[in-house]
Amino acid sequence: MNRHTGRVTPAADRSRADRLHEVIAGELDRRRADVLSIDGRLAGSLDLLVDFVSDGGKRIRPEFLWCGWRAGGGPEAGHRADAALRVGAALEFLQACALLHDDVIDRSERRRGRPATHRAVAGQHAGAGLAGDPDHYGVSVAILLGDLALAWADDLFLDGAERLGALSAAAPVWRAMRTEVLAGQLLDLAVTASVVDDPAAQERDALLVNRYKTAAYTVERPLHLGAALAGAGAATIAALRGYGADIGVAFQLRDDLLGVFGDPAVTGKPAGDDLAEGKRTMLLARARAGLAADPDGAAALAALDDGVGRSDADAPRLAAVIAGTGAVEAVEDRIATLVESALAALDAAPDLPDPVHERLTELADKATARSR
Amino acid sequence: MNRHTGRVTPAADRSRADRLHEVIAGELDRRRADVLSIDGRLAGSLDLLVDFVSDGGKRIRPEFLWCGWRAGGGPEAGHRADAALRVGAALEFLQACALLHDDVIDRSERRRGRPATHRAVAGQHAGAGLAGDPDHYGVSVAILLGDLALAWADDLFLDGAERLGALSAAAPVWRAMRTEVLAGQLLDLAVTASVVDDPAAQERDALLVNRYKTAAYTVERPLHLGAALAGAGAATIAALRGYGADIGVAFQLRDDLLGVFGDPAVTGKPAGDDLAEGKRTMLLARARAGLAADPDGAAALAALDDGVGRSDADAPRLAAVIAGTGAVEAVEDRIATLVESALAALDAAPDLPDPVHERLTELADKATARSR
Repeated sequence: MNRHTGRVTPAADRSRADRLHEVIAGELDRRRADVLSIDGRLAGSLDLLVDFVSDGGKRIRPEFLWCGWRAGGGPEAGHRADAALRVGAALEFLQACALLHDDVIDRSERRRGRPATHRAVAGQHAGAGLAGDPDHYGVSVAILLGDLALAWADDLFLDGAERLGALSAAAPVWRAMRTEVLAGQLLDLAVTASVVDDPAAQERDALLVNRYKTAAYTVERPLHLGAALAGAGAATIAALRGYGADIGVAFQLRDDLLGVFGDPAVTGKPAGDDLAEGKRTMLLARARAGLAADPDGAAALAALDDGVGRSDADAPRLAAVIAGTGAVEAVEDRIATLVESALAALDAAPDLPDPVHERLTELADKATARSR
Repeated sequence: MNRHTGRVTPAADRSRADRLHEVIAGELDRRRADVLSIDGRLAGSLDLLVDFVSDGGKRIRPEFLWCGWRAGGGPEAGHRADAALRVGAALEFLQACALLHDDVIDRSERRRGRPATHRAVAGQHAGAGLAGDPDHYGVSVAILLGDLALAWADDLFLDGAERLGALSAAAPVWRAMRTEVLAGQLLDLAVTASVVDDPAAQERDALLVNRYKTAAYTVERPLHLGAALAGAGAATIAALRGYGADIGVAFQLRDDLLGVFGDPAVTGKPAGDDLAEGKRTMLLARARAGLAADPDGAAALAALDDGVGRSDADAPRLAAVIAGTGAVEAVEDRIATLVESALAALDAAPDLPDPVHERLTELADKATARSR
């Protein structure tokens, strides 16, 4: 950081990303050694988790945590900053649990352009000629690897927060975040299984799931957690949470659009995967509402309702039906409105350092951009 | 407690069991309210977890934790004792995660005389006429409910240990215990899937799984954790861990015998469930070794190898084959030897209060008794 302007330089950003990576890699090394000291045969499956966390995704949650930390006055470097990075790393372990278990639940074949972990384990099983059903073995191992990631996330959180003497401020946020994301996933299952036909009710449900499964977990709570670790005041926390809730919802709405119209080379998932999975989104609810209100929409609505949720769904055709309803524009409008209100919340934050304000403005764009 | 003799009276035991139950019930109430504030529709599945933890099993892990706590000089009552009970409750939440996920992995139909959680959820789904596959819905919800239980276990541990100012002593034990039980479960899967034919190697593997999946997790680490919370010295901890490792292994060996020969009305699981699941046990390895060494054993060995691991296994016939090999007596002998060495470890503990010595002697018997 430049002491005079308080600006975070690109070099400081890079160095922080490296430090986060070091924290994650160091923790994975130690936990891997713990497990392999029990039995070396566990290396094959364990290393799938190690690689998954190590190669990571975009590290978006630690990034928001860091913004909260800096917004609350936490230092850029030194041992306190390192402790905050440990909690940032905890978010990546938690996310590994969420994704491994989610892929089992969604029966996803691929993740980040590779076989999903349960599929990779099934492949190891079949390749080694082991006894039993490879698919069920893959699911079983992925459940346990996800549990390990969740347990290790807690270990990292506890360690980082304790080093900062911030357990009493941060533990309630950590607790709320984990409960929210898991309850959001449970709600997603309940909503997807429900036989509600009303598009308005479907839209409400989609936004409720979005709020807890994604928005709180991806943006709002990481910001809140970072701010709590730094000892931020109530007004700063309220502004960050306001921004985070809006950007988090907008992030998921963008993800919903990419899940139907995105380039598999960029998303790492097959085109139209969300349609095959039957994912309930605002996009789908709006498309259904448009067709239901259209006197000539009955056939298209029937085709949509028949195709969504089928593994053999004709994704390009369904995408074209959705695109013809105006639902894409409605979702784009909502994203724009949310970004606007998020930035307004940011402006209301007292004493937000300029570089943090700048970074959160950039992130609002990055998290919701069409090319993500 | 009687101040003069230091004896724990039956009334004190009862009152402590009630206090533990209150801690568990209070925590479940608060976490249930957190989840239902997100959406009331989650009550149906969440209450399966609430009832599972609340109705509980034998609370054996909190019991061992309490013995460790008292062995380390922790008080019987008061706010420090209440904080220790919170960590005892954390063990019950952790166990709920282990059992919910284990039942998915083992495809168990029943648990504690009721449908396993994933089966109960599948039943709710089918009964309500929801969309999708009831069985996969049941598995998905059970995975997430187990995750919630694991997260809440960590919240309780952190809270209890922090109230005692014992985080730095207790966190490494808590971390080791969770890693050990999950690695033990992964090893159990790997061993069960392996095509090793040598009975001696199978016995070594069975005892290794036993050590981490059961012994450390059920007895050794709960004792260690309680002692660490109380600030016990190294010699006391070493003695308790020695006792715990032995009794823990013996406990699982008894469980293995009950899994083949036990009364379903007592075990809460169908007779011979372990045989249908293909569980690798010392009992099975010894039976195979006996038949392999017997010039007339080939047909029985083939029948055993053919039947074990099949859902339609003829359990009574396989049990009779095992009983005819002398394997039961070998396992009984091992249990007796382990109990003996556990009690010797206890006698080596410095300054162990008489009532704790007495209680651990009773528990050694209770955990390994034929009628459990």
